Amino acid sequence: MADATNASQTAGLDFTRSDERIGELLRRMHELADLGALGALAAWDQNTALPDGAGEVRGQQLATLQGVLHDRATDPRLGALLDGLAEPVASATFSDADRGLVREAKRTYDHATKLPRELVEEMARVEAGAFEAWRRAKEQNDFASFAPWLTKVVALQREVADRYGYKELRYDALLDLYEPGMTASRLDTLFAGVRDVSVALLRRIQSEGASVDDTCLKGEFPRDKQVALSDTVLRAMGYDFNRGGIAISPHPFTTSFGSPFDVRVTVRPDEHFVQAALMAAIHEGGHAVYEQGSAPALARTLLAGGASLGAHESQSRLWENAIGRSQAFWQAHYGLVQQAFPEQMGSVDVTTFWRALNKVQPSLIRVEADEVTYNLHIIIRFELEKGLVDGSISVEELPRLWNAKYREYLGIEPATDAEGVMQDIHWTSGFGYFPTYTLGNLYGAQIYTTLRRDFPDFDARLASGDTAFVLNWLRERMYASGATYQANELMTRVTGEAPDPKYFGAYLNAKFAEVYGLKPQA
Amino acid sequence: MADATNASQTAGLDFTRSDERIGELLRRMHELADLGALGALAAWDQNTALPDGAGEVRGQQLATLQGVLHDRATDPRLGALLDGLAEPVASATFSDADRGLVREAKRTYDHATKLPRELVEEMARVEAGAFEAWRRAKEQNDFASFAPWLTKVVALQREVADRYGYKELRYDALLDLYEPGMTASRLDTLFAGVRDVSVALLRRIQSEGASVDDTCLKGEFPRDKQVALSDTVLRAMGYDFNRGGIAISPHPFTTSFGSPFDVRVTVRPDEHFVQAALMAAIHEGGHAVYEQGSAPALARTLLAGGASLGAHESQSRLWENAIGRSQAFWQAHYGLVQQAFPEQMGSVDVTTFWRALNKVQPSLIRVEADEVTYNLHIIIRFELEKGLVDGSISVEELPRLWNAKYREYLGIEPATDAEGVMQDIHWTSGFGYFPTYTLGNLYGAQIYTTLRRDFPDFDARLASGDTAFVLNWLRERMYASGATYQANELMTRVTGEAPDPKYFGAYLNAKFAEVYGLKPQA
Repeated sequence: MADATNASQTAGLDFTRSDERIGELLRRMHELADLGALGALAAWDQNTALPDGAGEVRGQQLATLQGVLHDRATDPRLGALLDGLAEPVASATFSDADRGLVREAKRTYDHATKLPRELVEEMARVEAGAFEAWRRAKEQNDFASFAPWLTKVVALQREVADRYGYKELRYDALLDLYEPGMTASRLDTLFAGVRDVSVALLRRIQSEGASVDDTCLKGEFPRDKQVALSDTVLRAMGYDFNRGGIAISPHPFTTSFGSPFDVRVTVRPDEHFVQAALMAAIHEGGHAVYEQGSAPALARTLLAGGASLGAHESQSRLWENAIGRSQAFWQAHYGLVQQAFPEQMGSVDVTTFWRALNKVQPSLIRVEADEVTYNLHIIIRFELEKGLVDGSISVEELPRLWNAKYREYLGIEPATDAEGVMQDIHWTSGFGYFPTYTLGNLYGAQIYTTLRRDFPDFDARLASGDTAFVLNWLRERMYASGATYQANELMTRVTGEAPDPKYFGAYLNAKFAEVYGLKPQA
Repeated sequence: MADATNASQTAGLDFTRSDERIGELLRRMHELADLGALGALAAWDQNTALPDGAGEVRGQQLATLQGVLHDRATDPRLGALLDGLAEPVASATFSDADRGLVREAKRTYDHATKLPRELVEEMARVEAGAFEAWRRAKEQNDFASFAPWLTKVVALQREVADRYGYKELRYDALLDLYEPGMTASRLDTLFAGVRDVSVALLRRIQSEGASVDDTCLKGEFPRDKQVALSDTVLRAMGYDFNRGGIAISPHPFTTSFGSPFDVRVTVRPDEHFVQAALMAAIHEGGHAVYEQGSAPALARTLLAGGASLGAHESQSRLWENAIGRSQAFWQAHYGLVQQAFPEQMGSVDVTTFWRALNKVQPSLIRVEADEVTYNLHIIIRFELEKGLVDGSISVEELPRLWNAKYREYLGIEPATDAEGVMQDIHWTSGFGYFPTYTLGNLYGAQIYTTLRRDFPDFDARLASGDTAFVLNWLRERMYASGATYQANELMTRVTGEAPDPKYFGAYLNAKFAEVYGLKPQA
């Protein structure tokens, strides 16, 4: 049923298999995707089942697979095939899927061939060393011992950017790995809007907001009941268990295996805090329904899955925050929570629960942040890593600048570097990833606004328990095309215009005015 | 500790890595083992986690992997390397591990190169077709519709045997795939002893044995408690969870991933019959401790794991039957069963439980058979499949011959072909596998006899809860060498003599005389 709908809405989303060159490219892409899927399976296994004693041998297995993949990904005949397709594929006899495939295959080929082997090996060594140094330095709150490693990461990332090439800024070459086509100067514009709105709203909430009590989320919640509840809520949002499954892992994540037919999620229940697993399940569910929605024709190619990390995050955040933290959604589904935890939730009403889920509280820790403050954490990281890459900021002055920005944007300041500049793992492997989180929020709000515009009775339908209309709209408009279009074009196709931060601002102000009973603004 | 012991006992069990050719061979073997391990992981995943909707895409991924593996396994440079090593490796400057590796690599290379691609593809097609035909024919009790497929299997198996080559009988070439070095004429001799002892003992039990009541094994046993009990019993026998794990699957199995560092087992609890999961756990645990016991130096080569299917089955059966169905073992561990199921087992004493586990009851179904009748099921299959391969038996007369042999050996006869000649899946993929089950019982009893001889206080130690002395003895004598030696030589090394069915006969008679209170024989 879903597939039939997809197919009718997405007639340019198949490949011109009759063309010999496209056929050859597909053959090569399928092979790479299949082997990549086995690597993804090994990673999934490492997080869900691998015994402790098998870490080293698994590393050797993955290294062997990487070698096989690298040989095929850098085959000069693949490069020649892509060069030969570059011009013809632009013509109208080829489909959007053909063009997307050639574009993504070329990006991947360039990334695989532009770095010399010694640089790749050096990066792996430095990443491993930086990870260990970070782990220990964080434990001992000793930034000085991490700094030399971070300095090496900066130097290598600059070399990588130079080898990949860029038009405006070095940073753009790194960003392109995660958000193809995006640039730092565009981010400056987009993020300025998000930052100003977030800071202003936070001040209003702090000065005139009603108090929000979230004690109902804390207590004792047996882990197995939380997993069962996550399962039920995932079903309620339309996640397809016939093409997926749920497991437990140290950190929640979603993984797919080169196709929409197998997309799995994990949760990690926190016995004392019911929100952790529940909202993580909806968040991962958002990633997962996006992956499951790719047109079947795109399976086993680079086009199966999301258009970018930002596009991906837009769906996890749309489902988690716009839907999963809405009053309408819980009007339909709060009974499931009460059934799972009758003692803890029996006397808590849905409005109290909904407000608790949306409590705003500036904190030092990004991963615990609410919707109002979350992007301020990201923007701080973006501003700092951009400075590291362009040389305007040195590693040594990072802790001071970090703390100053937290004071400026969030009004609080870390007491230690462990809960400050060293809180995230990301910088041990490089730069350009963080901005995609905020892009996700921004894209998500814009898509959500379009969706609501298309359904005037949106809240009533959601409150009646219907989520299928949301999922079907997203599948047809967005998910089916996978990575056929880059994020900017995809946003224009889905929402009618390029990304604009005003939608996120309007969404945030309207939602939290309601949660906190704020007076209408002038 | 265990590793240190292994190392001291197994000095010859490392490779001469300083030799350039051995180094090159190891590099190639590691690569094949690593890729094979990813295939094993995919199979494990298929049995424990793969969503239903992903069957087709998983098949495509495995086909791609098989293609990569086949190219490497049939690389002519590998063949030349092995030819060049054949003579030198026999000299004393090389180790037993070197010789074993060259032997196994050569066997595998020959198997991979001797069959033309069209034959391999035809075999895959016929196997898939035969499986489907068997499934349907069994459901409808319609042997006639399966017969044409079985006829095709016979023809292909004969062609395969001719291409592999053999000295005495065609059947030997097929047997060699599962039990390297074994021949049908040796099996005739070994099995004659097993058959005569089993038939005679069965008649004595039926005519003069006391009655054995196994109702205590039947009732209501919650599945999660059965899994937890399986876990505890696996720990009690020394299975190392740091190198393994337990999962649930439709059929219990053990799998390893090219090394002793990751060996996993599955169980499938039957809510109404506690013996199923419990004894399957010990059975799979026996396979698993064998795999976990390979010397670490053998990891990522063909020598990690068991010497043959028969050698493997010897360990699953030794642990399951000789130990796991002994009174001494349960004197130490029956408390675990009572703790898990206080209502069901609280008033059942250990002797009743032990006798129930050893109830002898001729049945039509192999997988439910007790120790006395099990091998009769196997010998019937061996006699028939040997006849199919040498042409003395036609597919059409199989049902009649099957039934006649059941009447002769077991005294019972199937009412339908579904519970007769069509009960097992094995023949849809070929011949030569079944005999390894009985070889396992025969090897296992001989090893067990040697073990008891080395420990005069064997029963007392087992009854005190000690299993480590058994596991350590097996590790040092047998497990550490992996597949370095073929089964016949391994048996001589472990027990001091070549396989001899008299040990199984003596074991069986002694054990069941006790269970059934039989009078001493003249």
